[in-house]
Order: sequence, then structure tokens, then C-alpha cells
Amino acid sequence: MKIIKDIKSLKTEIKKHKKSGKIIGLVPTMGAIHSGHLSLVKQIRKKADIVITTIFVNKKQFNNLADFEKYPQTIEADIVNFKSAKVDILFVPENKEIYPDNFVTQIKLDKITDNLCGKTRPGHFDGVALIIVKLFNIITPNLAIFGEKDFQQLQIIRRLVNNLNIETQIIAAKIIREKSGLALSSRNLRLDEISLKKAPLIHQILLKMKQQILAKKNLKSVIDESSKELAKSGFGTIDYLEICDEENLEPIKIFNSKIKARIFIAVYLGKVRLIDNIRLY
Amino acid sequence: MKIIKDIKSLKTEIKKHKKSGKIIGLVPTMGAIHSGHLSLVKQIRKKADIVITTIFVNKKQFNNLADFEKYPQTIEADIVNFKSAKVDILFVPENKEIYPDNFVTQIKLDKITDNLCGKTRPGHFDGVALIIVKLFNIITPNLAIFGEKDFQQLQIIRRLVNNLNIETQIIAAKIIREKSGLALSSRNLRLDEISLKKAPLIHQILLKMKQQILAKKNLKSVIDESSKELAKSGFGTIDYLEICDEENLEPIKIFNSKIKARIFIAVYLGKVRLIDNIRLY
Repeated sequence: MKIIKDIKSLKTEIKKHKKSGKIIGLVPTMGAIHSGHLSLVKQIRKKADIVITTIFVNKKQFNNLADFEKYPQTIEADIVNFKSAKVDILFVPENKEIYPDNFVTQIKLDKITDNLCGKTRPGHFDGVALIIVKLFNIITPNLAIFGEKDFQQLQIIRRLVNNLNIETQIIAAKIIREKSGLALSSRNLRLDEISLKKAPLIHQILLKMKQQILAKKNLKSVIDESSKELAKSGFGTIDYLEICDEENLEPIKIFNSKIKARIFIAVYLGKVRLIDNIRLY
Repeated sequence: MKIIKDIKSLKTEIKKHKKSGKIIGLVPTMGAIHSGHLSLVKQIRKKADIVITTIFVNKKQFNNLADFEKYPQTIEADIVNFKSAKVDILFVPENKEIYPDNFVTQIKLDKITDNLCGKTRPGHFDGVALIIVKLFNIITPNLAIFGEKDFQQLQIIRRLVNNLNIETQIIAAKIIREKSGLALSSRNLRLDEISLKKAPLIHQILLKMKQQILAKKNLKSVIDESSKELAKSGFGTIDYLEICDEENLEPIKIFNSKIKARIFIAVYLGKVRLIDNIRLY
């Protein structure tokens, strides 16, 4: 695995592979690599000749500086993990390599960034869109893979790529869960033992809600009861617990099996904010 | 010359040329082609194997709808002109090809878009940045050429390309002038006979200002006297008449030959807004 820190060397390396007709697959990450990420590497490997991963904790997508500062940094372990997953190139740029002094450009998406995580994390998806456009321009991958756990991010990236005529094909990867049902997340590293035991309830509640919704139970009461159950079990603030159209991410008031919909949740457990989602079709 | 209206056919055509190692040069325009544009074609031809021009009157860069509606449309003449200039491909997309229904993406640049034309045309340069990123992503040109007449636009595109890691090399072309000194512009088509006789005064005043500034005359009085002269000669509102650092486009208060500076002007003649600039080094 080649570890590259600067854009120029990375571009030279990529041009070499492109010239010989290789398919480039990209897995962008912020590090703190877990089996979810490694599963993305495994999935893209099936379609790509050269797998590139990136580790860059993108300050611009943190609306909360404390969250940025607390973001787990486990670079040595990440390198070991990527090496065993047979990643070809790891790109680990410094902040100034990505955002030099003269940096003034912003990218914004209307509406689709307003609901769900966009509500409590203003600017978050603008930061995501910016780093994705930059990485795609630097790496020009044929394919890039994103997990459905960050479903809003996935949809925003799909829209961005469509709107800006970017050539990269976006692949969606199913959520990887612990046996307990807890969705894998770098943030799980911040959960203490007690919280780790509680966290799987999120997925259990989503499964129960799905059953109730498919059995035509009123959406509002399904949401209200589930919210109460989370509170009773010791969860903190629920940023959102909503049923949305998965295309435009707008809330659905009456369930209709013809609309591709999902239940989306963001909830605090202690100081850690966890997200999950489940499809209703 | 191939005339192409849809993105898919254009991409197929471009891929063919890229595969055979051809250098692609781009001249983006909004039509109403004049010798200024044709000079851009001629200049880029020297460095490119395949010259692509685009005609797209980009609604998103008009802050004033009336200005958009009045923008001259001379497509038949434009085609004749481009053919005789030996353009290889002309891309003329419809609005919905560029901005489909699901279009939600915006690009913004801080500070550099605030001064000069940015002051009176809010959103103008965001629209320019957006169409340029889209055209560059569709066409992936090795080179693209922009005239120094729209100097702020040129600098913004340079910054955008740098900030978003776009591969295209930006070439700056000197301003093409009538014998009278009037800078060529599609807007000149909207000037009546009397205005056409007055308009060259803009360049004459810029030349005089340059002399005075290089002779160390106080900047404020140079600007004040020139503004008065324009008013006396029947010009309308002066949107700006400023001396700015050409890198960041911020106004300069005291002239210093070490800073690369320019005089920038935007002034109305009747209902037509004309711009021009001249370098001070």
C-alpha cells in the first residue's frame, strides 16, 4: 500500500494507472476505521482494479468544533487495517494541502440539506459536498462507495454528482451492524460499556416501527411511542425520528407503499450522537 | 464543425478525441459572437488540437432578469462565425439540459466576488462559477481561455479552479479593442449611433488615469476628476471606478509599483452597462 500525503504525487500515481486503463475505486473516510469501512473496501474491490482510500478529518463539515476535536484519530491502526484489506493507495493529506490560505470556495445544496441532520448541523453537508468535489477532482475515480448509514449524505452526494456533471459512479453500501443490531460507526468508540449495551435498542425500535407502519398504524403515534420508549431507556435528545421519502428526504405524513420511504433517527446516548435508518420497502 | 446539443453526445465525442491523445481547448461564450471571441478561438487554436466553443446564455448569472431577456441572441451568425474560425465542436445546450428539475447546487466564493461587479450584481459570479464547473466537468478541457475584459471573472475562475483542484489550465487573453479604443463586447450591439461615438471615451479616460497615477498623482483626485469628466460627457451611473490589486481585487489606497494593480470601471451609457480595465504595470 502506497501512503501519499500530497496532491501532486497522488495525481502522478493515478495518471499512471489511468493510462494503463485501470478502474479506480475510491473509499473516502475520516479515519477511525472499523469493519464498516473495511466492508466498503471489500465491496469496491470487486469492481475496481485500484482501490484508493483517503483519511481526512474535514474540519469544514463539523458545525461543532468540540465534535471535531473529539473525533477519534487512530492513524496507526487505520494503516494496519487498510494494509490487510489490500488497499492500493492511502491518501492522507494535511489540512493546508486541502485548504490552502487562498481558499474561498463554498458549495451549497438547497432543500435536500435542510431536513434531518441538516437541521441540527447547519453547514455540515456543505462541508461534505466541498471535500467530495475536491477529492473527486483530485482522484477522478471511476467509482466511489458510501454507506447507507449516512443516508442523507449518500443522497446529497448522488445529487451533487448529477448536478455538477461529475463522471464518478456512486455505489451505495448496506449498513453493517454488530450482532446486536447496532450500526457500525466511528462514534461507537466513544460509548462506555453501559451505553454500548443500550445502543442496540435504536435498531430494535426501528424494526418495531417498520412492522407497525407496514401494518398501517398511524405514523404520528408510532413515532410518539418510540420516542417515549427511547427516553424511558435512558437515551437523551432525539434530534429527529422521521419517516421520509428517500429521494428528496422530505417527511411523509401518510404512509404509501408506492413511495420509497425510510425511517431516520439521530439520538444522543450520553454525549454521543448516533444515527441509523431502515427502509420501509 | 459539429454542432451538439446534448451532454451525452458531447461526452462521447470528447472521449474519442481524448483517447487519441488530443489536447482539448475550450472557449465558453454566451453567444453574440464578435471579433473578441474569435480572437480567443484563434489564440487557443495555437495550443489545442480540438477547439470546442459553447453558447449558453446562463440565466443563473443574471441578477437582473431584464438584462437576461435583452441579451442578444444571434445564433445563425454565431454559427457562421465559428465555422469560419474553424471551431471543431460547438456545444449549444438547452436550459433544461444544464439545469434539470432536480437542480439544487450552488457555488459561492467569499470576498473575491464581493467588490467591483459583485457589488451591484449579487449572485452574478456564483452563477458564473456554477456554469464553469459544470462545463469543465462535462468537457474536461486541457485548456480554457477567458478575456481580460471580464478581469474579475478571470480571477474568480482561476481561484475556483485552484480551490476545487480542477485540472484545466486557464489562459488569459488581452482585451481586443476597436480602433477607437472601445473594448469589444456583446453589449456594444445595444448601443445606438450616438452612444457608439461616446463609448471610446472610457478607454481614453483609463489611459489618462494610468498616466496620472504613474506620475504619482493622488488616487482619489484622479478618480474624482475622471468621474466628473464621464458625467459631463453624458455617461450615466458609474457602478465603480476603482484601482485594485489584481490578485485579490481589493481596492488600493496608495499606489505602489510593487503591487500588480489595475484600474477597473463599470459605467452606464444609456441603459447599457459597459466595463473595461487597464493594467498599471
